[in-house]
Amino acid sequence: MEPLVFVIFGASGDLAKRKLLPSLFQAHKAGNLPQNFAILGVSRTSFSDESFRAKAFTDNLHIKKEDASQEQIRSFARMLYYQAIDTSKKEDYVKVKDKLSKLDELHQTKCNYIFYLSTPPWLYEIIPPYLAHFGLNDRTTGSKRLVIEKPFGYDLTSAKDLNGKLQQHFEEDQIFRIDHYLGKETVQNLLVTRFANGIFEPLWNRNFIDHIEITAAESIGVGNRGGYYDHSGALRDMFQNHLLMVMAQIAMEPPTSGNAKSIRAETVKLFESIRPITEEEVSKYVVRGQYLASTINGELLKGYREEEGVPEHSKTETYLAVKFFIDNWRWAGVPFYVRTGKRLPTKVTEITVSFKAPPHTLFRNQKEIFQSQNKMIIRIQPDEGLLLNFGMKVPGDGFRVKNVNMDFHYSDLANQYIPDAYERLILDCIKGDATLYARGESVEAAWAFVDPILNAWKNDPEQKLFGYPAGTWGPDNSDMLFDTWPFSWHDPCPALTKEHNFCEL
Amino acid sequence: MEPLVFVIFGASGDLAKRKLLPSLFQAHKAGNLPQNFAILGVSRTSFSDESFRAKAFTDNLHIKKEDASQEQIRSFARMLYYQAIDTSKKEDYVKVKDKLSKLDELHQTKCNYIFYLSTPPWLYEIIPPYLAHFGLNDRTTGSKRLVIEKPFGYDLTSAKDLNGKLQQHFEEDQIFRIDHYLGKETVQNLLVTRFANGIFEPLWNRNFIDHIEITAAESIGVGNRGGYYDHSGALRDMFQNHLLMVMAQIAMEPPTSGNAKSIRAETVKLFESIRPITEEEVSKYVVRGQYLASTINGELLKGYREEEGVPEHSKTETYLAVKFFIDNWRWAGVPFYVRTGKRLPTKVTEITVSFKAPPHTLFRNQKEIFQSQNKMIIRIQPDEGLLLNFGMKVPGDGFRVKNVNMDFHYSDLANQYIPDAYERLILDCIKGDATLYARGESVEAAWAFVDPILNAWKNDPEQKLFGYPAGTWGPDNSDMLFDTWPFSWHDPCPALTKEHNFCEL
Repeated sequence: MEPLVFVIFGASGDLAKRKLLPSLFQAHKAGNLPQNFAILGVSRTSFSDESFRAKAFTDNLHIKKEDASQEQIRSFARMLYYQAIDTSKKEDYVKVKDKLSKLDELHQTKCNYIFYLSTPPWLYEIIPPYLAHFGLNDRTTGSKRLVIEKPFGYDLTSAKDLNGKLQQHFEEDQIFRIDHYLGKETVQNLLVTRFANGIFEPLWNRNFIDHIEITAAESIGVGNRGGYYDHSGALRDMFQNHLLMVMAQIAMEPPTSGNAKSIRAETVKLFESIRPITEEEVSKYVVRGQYLASTINGELLKGYREEEGVPEHSKTETYLAVKFFIDNWRWAGVPFYVRTGKRLPTKVTEITVSFKAPPHTLFRNQKEIFQSQNKMIIRIQPDEGLLLNFGMKVPGDGFRVKNVNMDFHYSDLANQYIPDAYERLILDCIKGDATLYARGESVEAAWAFVDPILNAWKNDPEQKLFGYPAGTWGPDNSDMLFDTWPFSWHDPCPALTKEHNFCEL
Repeated sequence: MEPLVFVIFGASGDLAKRKLLPSLFQAHKAGNLPQNFAILGVSRTSFSDESFRAKAFTDNLHIKKEDASQEQIRSFARMLYYQAIDTSKKEDYVKVKDKLSKLDELHQTKCNYIFYLSTPPWLYEIIPPYLAHFGLNDRTTGSKRLVIEKPFGYDLTSAKDLNGKLQQHFEEDQIFRIDHYLGKETVQNLLVTRFANGIFEPLWNRNFIDHIEITAAESIGVGNRGGYYDHSGALRDMFQNHLLMVMAQIAMEPPTSGNAKSIRAETVKLFESIRPITEEEVSKYVVRGQYLASTINGELLKGYREEEGVPEHSKTETYLAVKFFIDNWRWAGVPFYVRTGKRLPTKVTEITVSFKAPPHTLFRNQKEIFQSQNKMIIRIQPDEGLLLNFGMKVPGDGFRVKNVNMDFHYSDLANQYIPDAYERLILDCIKGDATLYARGESVEAAWAFVDPILNAWKNDPEQKLFGYPAGTWGPDNSDMLFDTWPFSWHDPCPALTKEHNFCEL
């Protein structure tokens, strides 16, 4: 692998501590990092290399050092460096440049840099030009990559604006927009499930699929992030990015090859094929909700508006359900239902593919049920796996049919370590593989779909916002989106247990 | 249900003891027998009603009476009657007629009789005309049914001859040819699996299925039945009846309805569509074998020719493997491989449906495997169930695919009692439902397919008979039938355990 310095802006922050440094250490232990490699933490806080090593690594309880050797711990610590700057001051960036030159000498890293912006989003427009000012975007001296976290804008206009600004200083193929959902093994497995299997590939279209549901539920509320969340909401926080990306894996056409270019091109095509929901149609296709106080198992759960930092009359949605269609040859007429929310009964992300019943009831003379509505449930998290729900004959005479389950748990696949989403994505970026990163165009296409919904809510303050008691599956009205069979959502069951399959369907 | 006398010819024999009377008692306990019902045992041995009750019921250890109430035991015993006759003497049948008249009076059974011939096959041509002679085939007085066990002839000519003789005295719809394989829940479930499920029905044809295997293995040898078996062999004993019937369930077109007429009509159509194997082609499409002595786990197993009652130079096959094609629109070009044998490694009957790989390797630039040859394994016995073997992504970068399993065990379906095959079939006959019984035409069609194989062996004594060591999967040559992928049989694994799926494929 190419020698490299991995620069973390916001190195003293939460994400660096919880995800980035632990993932890098994990990769180091597994021998997956380049031989010539260094990590440079950058932020405003004053640290020496030594004190940063202590603070960010030695004292960081998120980094599991129990199963590492002393040599692994020492050699990782030796890769860690720090540079304090005021990120909003252009002149400070010379310090970064100088430090990088030193690291190039020490570690033979040959001017190859990754700049990971683990910072508040407003800095996405500040840091890149300042880096560029000191030539730190210059690909002629070595590879330069820029990693940014969502949100990529807060509506279509701001997303275009951000993309434009980033692209002034970095080429699109230098920009790695991270969506940690795409780093999840189960999400990547969607393409394999669909295209590697002779039993699934032929079924994956409008002829055999009745409808598709995606549920991304959180059981927690906004906690102490109320102030931040109130400016975001479920649509921006989950739907526009993670869930549309998951949907793309389920619905995209087969890419011409497995590389980043092909897969990202299919994602863009798919987003362009979603039938737009106009402002006028929002009340028909979109249900938004906000959790209300309730008592679950004797515990009083606050309502959203009572959470710290949330305005008393907030109209921010903590629940969102959207129905839409994909107007292409594969999916014409197949409704997609996507919902997400906080304070739902359990934490789960699940895709439910409901297949059409067979075209004819074979034993029509029998009074008993002889058809089964088959389902495939793909569990993204937790306990990643796959469940098939299909019909078998009930023992005894006649041909009565009962639905049964068979399931596969991803954890059974191998004894091998399943890499964390961040670890996977960071390693991909180090290798220069952008397959699992979002392309600017697809981000904009996703915003283009979402924008009318945002506008409808903004322009018509009377647009309904439904309350739902904390700990329930959202507003009852969300079932109204199902104006055809099955007339309601398929609620995932609280826990997947190996003995009992996913749940009785 | 219609009142009825169930007459068992060969009432003192093994089948009556092991299967018929236990099944009838089970049905009685479950309340599934008609209210007006009696059982009349007929055979040469001299018994009174009382001594027959003691011998056939009270002292019969195959009938589980532990979980029955005293009232259930007493009321069943009260239904049992006996009549000794010499079945080969016409005049003796008047005794049966008289006894039946008495039972009609005692039990209000209204001249409805089932005659179950649990006798040596040569009596199939004797008993029916003698019954007819005394008007016991007369449908005008009440329903009359005749149940016969295989063998239904020993080649095409004798089968036609037998059918002709039976049909002289009984209408085809009075004749119930029992094949206990069709009474198995898993065999009946084949139609449900295929036609009730939107995920399986569309795949069940030449476009998506590569080939189909059926394996029916026994681990035991011929034991003390060598004398009988040597006149039969695997082709007559298993293939011509059970396995072709199982194949019919897998391959038939959807019947127009669930009744006997429709299903049996599709069976006949299917058998007529099997591409005949000519005498000249037998060596290409058929492999026969005979087990040889071997030592398994320290135990010396006899070779077939050393078994009691088997001639020293016997050429009877204890193993048979056949490859054939079904020349119709659904199955053109799809090879079917069927094998059966004694002294194989385990007792198992299993269908393996191998699906075609997807049409294209998605990630062709990757050196790693990206296709999965999917399989569906349907276990008929033991531990009836279904297994899907399909590809999932191996965790980590790239798109490497590994095959995994998900399975369903029929025993998980319900806590309810799964009826024994005989019990099910006897109850069907009592109800007059012939769905699971073989029609004369289909028996003849099956013999028509098998006849050239018998002839080839008879007319050319040099036709190869391959030895295989007892306890192995038959002659190596049986793999030669696979002149295309996968070039060998899929061997079932010894035991299905719930923890470990069916087996590693």
